[in-house]
Amino acid sequence: MALEALEISGERLSDELDTLSGITDDSRPGWTRTAFSDVERDGRQWLASRMRDAGLEVRQDSAGNVIGTLSGRHTGPAVVTGSHIDTVDSGGRYDGMVGVLGALEAVKAMREAGMTLDHPLRVVGFFGEEANEFGLAHFGSRAIGGTLLPQHLELRNSEGVSLAAALQARAGIDPQACMKARWARLEAHAYVELHIEQGPLLEDHKRSIGLVTGIAGAQRFTASFSGRPDHAGNTPLNRRSDALCAAAELTVSIEQIARDHPDGVATVGVIKVSPGASNVVPGHAELLGDMRSLYSLWLKDRRDETLRAAQAAGASRGVQVSIAWPSITDPTLFTEPMQRVIGEAITATGHDPMPITSGAGHDAQEMAAICPAGMIFIPSHDGRSHCPQEHTDASDLLVGVRALAEALVALDKVDKADLA
Amino acid sequence: MALEALEISGERLSDELDTLSGITDDSRPGWTRTAFSDVERDGRQWLASRMRDAGLEVRQDSAGNVIGTLSGRHTGPAVVTGSHIDTVDSGGRYDGMVGVLGALEAVKAMREAGMTLDHPLRVVGFFGEEANEFGLAHFGSRAIGGTLLPQHLELRNSEGVSLAAALQARAGIDPQACMKARWARLEAHAYVELHIEQGPLLEDHKRSIGLVTGIAGAQRFTASFSGRPDHAGNTPLNRRSDALCAAAELTVSIEQIARDHPDGVATVGVIKVSPGASNVVPGHAELLGDMRSLYSLWLKDRRDETLRAAQAAGASRGVQVSIAWPSITDPTLFTEPMQRVIGEAITATGHDPMPITSGAGHDAQEMAAICPAGMIFIPSHDGRSHCPQEHTDASDLLVGVRALAEALVALDKVDKADLA
Repeated sequence: MALEALEISGERLSDELDTLSGITDDSRPGWTRTAFSDVERDGRQWLASRMRDAGLEVRQDSAGNVIGTLSGRHTGPAVVTGSHIDTVDSGGRYDGMVGVLGALEAVKAMREAGMTLDHPLRVVGFFGEEANEFGLAHFGSRAIGGTLLPQHLELRNSEGVSLAAALQARAGIDPQACMKARWARLEAHAYVELHIEQGPLLEDHKRSIGLVTGIAGAQRFTASFSGRPDHAGNTPLNRRSDALCAAAELTVSIEQIARDHPDGVATVGVIKVSPGASNVVPGHAELLGDMRSLYSLWLKDRRDETLRAAQAAGASRGVQVSIAWPSITDPTLFTEPMQRVIGEAITATGHDPMPITSGAGHDAQEMAAICPAGMIFIPSHDGRSHCPQEHTDASDLLVGVRALAEALVALDKVDKADLA
Repeated sequence: MALEALEISGERLSDELDTLSGITDDSRPGWTRTAFSDVERDGRQWLASRMRDAGLEVRQDSAGNVIGTLSGRHTGPAVVTGSHIDTVDSGGRYDGMVGVLGALEAVKAMREAGMTLDHPLRVVGFFGEEANEFGLAHFGSRAIGGTLLPQHLELRNSEGVSLAAALQARAGIDPQACMKARWARLEAHAYVELHIEQGPLLEDHKRSIGLVTGIAGAQRFTASFSGRPDHAGNTPLNRRSDALCAAAELTVSIEQIARDHPDGVATVGVIKVSPGASNVVPGHAELLGDMRSLYSLWLKDRRDETLRAAQAAGASRGVQVSIAWPSITDPTLFTEPMQRVIGEAITATGHDPMPITSGAGHDAQEMAAICPAGMIFIPSHDGRSHCPQEHTDASDLLVGVRALAEALVALDKVDKADLA
């Protein structure tokens, strides 16, 4: 049947977003529904009930994911979509929610139009997508995609509590069982996720929709500088080992390195200094930051350059330097066929998709471990995200959900082997 | 009588230093006897009793200063010496104490040798020399020198408590009365202070004693940078307003400015950044630091250069910058005659004084408001100070006390007008 017949309701979607936004920790700024909080558990229950109302068969898996399934003409692997309903602390109303509630709206419209896919259709509300207090992101999609590792459960928060203990005590998830949430590759036909861009590029280019080419690999670094604390009044410049000056030089160098190599981004987000008094030469400084690119080689070259720049900044000041890369995540390149099918689906809705790389991580990168995956982006006003100012226009939401519905239908018609 | 007859006892001095070092807050690292603490009050009482034992007439003035006087052949203005017995938090055993207990040892030796000066001799243990939680240093010497201002009493600590309230509640000092501690210019003939260098220059040059030419003026600055917090993965470099990068560039620029102009020093000691997450472009950054020089013009030129460098660092990144100088203290230049008399006194003890500028502030700069003033420095091992590693060799202590005694006797013989 013709997709033009689908009646995607912006009003219905907007109402659902409003309702879910109301399930929020009122004691925090903006909209806060972090994993391991009571409001996030409430949100999952609400989502399960809304999925049931939409006619999906719903279960919560052993990793906290809420999964709603609509039968297809055949059994077998499912066309999968979804996103997450957890937020960062003091976050916004769109990140993640748009992909879950947008998928639910697409399903409602498809059912109302009497449309049935060949494959089953699964909508997933992934548990705990945002980086949590244990330093782990994408908990639920890792569990499904098989990228959740036993050692992840031993990660500890700043209070020394393990992720395993917190899952049990605060999220109602049995840490012994959560690995069993993993899907066989045979269960998934393809995965497509609708998400806000969380950056300014679509708006800058006056485009309503983006076709995501891949998700940047990310590497986090810490740079530690050990000099010597000295009296700021009595220590001549040539007798100092000023750890902050070395750290500041590296900060500026990293900015320049990233400017010189625009196929990725690099950021120093944290700087700590001690003793930390205006009249004491800093004896120790530490930087935390990250670098992201769709290209593994870019990431490797920047690691090498960062080490050289740090050593130069330290050596000229008698400051000891050490660089560590506690986390290196490989880029996820969405397959050419997935990009083509999703791109054509977007074009069919009357919009011209802009190719775009995601700098942020998403559940789609974990799902890519078990099936061809792809993503659709819609604009974030002023590029703001992870803050109360996060906003996407209602008209863009509608464009996104239409494109998602079109993509689900298109993916349903292509052999899995041809999407790889 | 011949000064060679003076028997300065290194052992006696060392015992007194040990005893005072024992009056320390055991809950803090190193040796901690901060103003407004119980141990500092205990220290003042101990000092008063040791002064009495040494034959001085002792009073505690209305600003907490412990003042011991030895009569001279005539009444009239006093030859004054001293320093302070308060420490920084987690400090050492020498800063300040050497000048008070060294003066006391000189007095003991002079009395034992039956030596009497023409002028009365005053030894002062100044209250609260170190910068306190209210941001004020040299409390006691300011009160005596007349540089304590009514608005200083209204300074507040981070808990909102005023200096006036803390003086009353925690130091046994009546804030209404402390201004009355001021001395008339007629009371003081000259002031000379023995102190550790708190820097590495004497040791670097293998010299046991320094003649201080002056105390650097100091100006504290805060530099605030306001950019925009953005997602570190999704915001291209050319769309960022990275406050930390601007602050880091200014930090490196200030280091270079100071290297280019070695007649002073400049330090960034504190850097704060927010939001402060490794995956968020910093929206705000703040630097705190200071600059010091014996030359007022150096200080002014550096203020101008700092503003230009900060504006350049901000402008290239779309970051708003503001620079403030919450405190500017003028340099204190000790008079030529004072330097000559003290220098000759040092030479008379068989040591060659090295001219040296004090980068740190001292009680002497407040005393310079009412009489000719000067200082003698002895070496700090490895330049360390304000830390438990602070150390001065016993042999250097002895050299310093001998020179101090010689200087007191020499100053006694010169008309005040000839010292100006």
